[in-house]
Amino acid sequence: MTENLARIDYGAAFPPPSHGSEAVVTPESLSRLEPDLLRAALRIEEGARNGENGFGWFNLPERSPAAVLAAAEKLSRFDNVIHVGIGGSSLGNIMLSSALKHPFYNGLSRQERGGPRLFVADNADPETTRAIWDMVDPAGTAVVVASKSGATAETMANFLWFRDRLKTSSGDKAPEQVLVMTDPEKGVLRQFVRDTGCLSLEIPSDVGGRYSVLSPVGLLTAALQGIDVSELLDGASQMKQGLLKCRSTETSMAWILAGISTLHAAAGRPMIVMMPYSDRLCDFTEWFAQLWAESLGKNGKGTTPVRALGAVDQHSQVQLYAEGPDDKLYLFIAPSSREALAIPPSKDPSLASLSYLYGKSMGTMLDCEAAATAATLSGSGKPVLWLEIPAIDATRLGALVFLFEYVTALAGFVQGVDPFDQPGVEQGKKFTYGMMGREGFSADAREAGARFRVLGERSAGL
Amino acid sequence: MTENLARIDYGAAFPPPSHGSEAVVTPESLSRLEPDLLRAALRIEEGARNGENGFGWFNLPERSPAAVLAAAEKLSRFDNVIHVGIGGSSLGNIMLSSALKHPFYNGLSRQERGGPRLFVADNADPETTRAIWDMVDPAGTAVVVASKSGATAETMANFLWFRDRLKTSSGDKAPEQVLVMTDPEKGVLRQFVRDTGCLSLEIPSDVGGRYSVLSPVGLLTAALQGIDVSELLDGASQMKQGLLKCRSTETSMAWILAGISTLHAAAGRPMIVMMPYSDRLCDFTEWFAQLWAESLGKNGKGTTPVRALGAVDQHSQVQLYAEGPDDKLYLFIAPSSREALAIPPSKDPSLASLSYLYGKSMGTMLDCEAAATAATLSGSGKPVLWLEIPAIDATRLGALVFLFEYVTALAGFVQGVDPFDQPGVEQGKKFTYGMMGREGFSADAREAGARFRVLGERSAGL
Repeated sequence: MTENLARIDYGAAFPPPSHGSEAVVTPESLSRLEPDLLRAALRIEEGARNGENGFGWFNLPERSPAAVLAAAEKLSRFDNVIHVGIGGSSLGNIMLSSALKHPFYNGLSRQERGGPRLFVADNADPETTRAIWDMVDPAGTAVVVASKSGATAETMANFLWFRDRLKTSSGDKAPEQVLVMTDPEKGVLRQFVRDTGCLSLEIPSDVGGRYSVLSPVGLLTAALQGIDVSELLDGASQMKQGLLKCRSTETSMAWILAGISTLHAAAGRPMIVMMPYSDRLCDFTEWFAQLWAESLGKNGKGTTPVRALGAVDQHSQVQLYAEGPDDKLYLFIAPSSREALAIPPSKDPSLASLSYLYGKSMGTMLDCEAAATAATLSGSGKPVLWLEIPAIDATRLGALVFLFEYVTALAGFVQGVDPFDQPGVEQGKKFTYGMMGREGFSADAREAGARFRVLGERSAGL
Repeated sequence: MTENLARIDYGAAFPPPSHGSEAVVTPESLSRLEPDLLRAALRIEEGARNGENGFGWFNLPERSPAAVLAAAEKLSRFDNVIHVGIGGSSLGNIMLSSALKHPFYNGLSRQERGGPRLFVADNADPETTRAIWDMVDPAGTAVVVASKSGATAETMANFLWFRDRLKTSSGDKAPEQVLVMTDPEKGVLRQFVRDTGCLSLEIPSDVGGRYSVLSPVGLLTAALQGIDVSELLDGASQMKQGLLKCRSTETSMAWILAGISTLHAAAGRPMIVMMPYSDRLCDFTEWFAQLWAESLGKNGKGTTPVRALGAVDQHSQVQLYAEGPDDKLYLFIAPSSREALAIPPSKDPSLASLSYLYGKSMGTMLDCEAAATAATLSGSGKPVLWLEIPAIDATRLGALVFLFEYVTALAGFVQGVDPFDQPGVEQGKKFTYGMMGREGFSADAREAGARFRVLGERSAGL
């Protein structure tokens, strides 16, 4: 195989029916989706061309990272960067760092790291917020806050807290330690930038949170950690240009993934398991899970993304996958190159039964486990997809990011839902505002209280 | 409420039917499960009394931790401990550490930590294995290996590698840096202990991997980190003694959880979402996911555990939960006390719209978000359970561990599956052995290869 970015093997995506009543997914049913996929593809291109709200991610690979690189240069003198953001403003940052940097990056020396230590404050959990502050020297710390609207409660609560700490410790110099990423024009954080003169970057207004990792939201911390953001963008652009030339369910990885996942959803499989065989891609599944769930889970539709990790979940979830209900589509992700590390032989006679491991590469073992698990699931009639990438580097990761954003958007249009909105989270926000006593939300407070009290109408304890 | 360990609110577990054809879960259907639950409870007590294979976890709360404490004392002089184990031999260790220690434990000074740094080598990912070794000084490092059988490929590959590194650096002193946890009598690792005279602890032979966190498997690293393992066991024992006195679906948290989850599985909801509102319990969901999936996912049955975290997943999965298919049972976990941390007011006029946050406790905000999300899901007709714990400490964590082990075992017997076996992982192991060239598995190698080749019969790439 000569693929440079990725390859999808989908020969095992069409198992024979296992329950009598189920629709069967066949190569023919995939082909029949081609008109819908073409319409979806053209819609995405049109939206991106016209600068429509939500479609901006499609244009990100060609945007210049110059502003991000300049900002990273300014922050590089700090020992610590606290990135404050949640959901689309944190999952991509964590994903890029996990995939491309040393797993114990913060524990390395400055010289080994090549950049500031990185802390991500996503949740509004007071213990984590305090713990992050425990770890940093205030004078050597910058706080980056990312929120397009400036209204995200968790993010703003953390930002208020860290900013107050900075003010207490640094006084007048505190504004130099803050960088704000927000909408170019609108929102309280943009006004805050105008008022304080702190550093800032723009989140393009036509890019939604979960599609924003290749915007400054995801790129700044990556650049600070020494990740080559130009390579990320170049990989995404290569994937985009390649996919734009593939307009069939036989040639386009994106059409294949979007089509097959749509068909298995319709055939009664409510889950999609993403299972990379590399610790470095563990957080990629978290990033994908948000993209998939929030884009497609609406109107009573949507499949649930299940985050797995090989080989660890062979010792946790694979029993269920192999012998439980046939209610999942499995997507393996396997890198075809790994660090060379040989399992050394032992002279201990007690360990002789392990001699099959002696001298073998640990990476080869992991590859064998991935293939063995895929073969087991496929052999038991479960639908299996196998995505192989030549390596886990910035180019391939950028390509994967674009691939899955495109697949998700395609699947949304084919399934008849808007892949760029998230109306279902508004109710919870209003309830929270109400319970927090925010002006104008007292009716929500009453309704939330009434609904919540139902939970306690039956109770047991110890 | 005066509960000391935990309380389950289940008033919102019985929503009206949302799809015409579905079975409806009612308080009456829960009551009707009582004979099955009683039979399951008695079976568990009988098995534990008779020392039957798999039932040993039920007796762990009353086992003395003396051997664990003595071993921890011996290892406490090290700066680093590398714990080698996977699945049931790692998830509990990570869970206890996350729940009860500082989130950046390894980044603290020795004095702040109070014990050695802890690294868990679970996956056989060569990059992680190498990265762990990057972080330690060989002379100050102990390697702990946990495998009941001594045959777990990932664990033994890592053990062989780390042991070889120790030998290279420490020579004759290397055996003093190794502690083995394995079966008291059987297996290659027990023979290895006899041959080398290295330190060892016993994994009770009647305790299965996923039920072993309150055995030495989970307790040694906890003790090394300064967690009070006697409190963990005491909490588990309190929960056990309390539950043994509750033999109804109105009084027993365990019967309620096992019964309701069984009913919703039968009613066509294939997923159970565990969503704690505390970063410290994030890894508890990973531990639970193994326990649940591997115990109940067999014979075509079993629901899929979905790991979520509040409030982070409000910005990732809640759109799907609120507006996607009604195919999940939701289990919130909320601590009723948190670290006090006030969100400071800001004088910036630009941030005036955030004044509803000023002076509020960040923990209160998180509590409001949990209640708001539960109210939203419940209000939209989804089944919701609410588990509240007074605090996240060793006593309550031990209690929660026992509660969920007991719930899982009860659910298994009620659903007619053996909650203590895992036959579905054998095929994958044989395929792996075959592909690794292990003697006696060449037929498996051929079968695995044939099945795997099916995946590649259709392919697309870039």
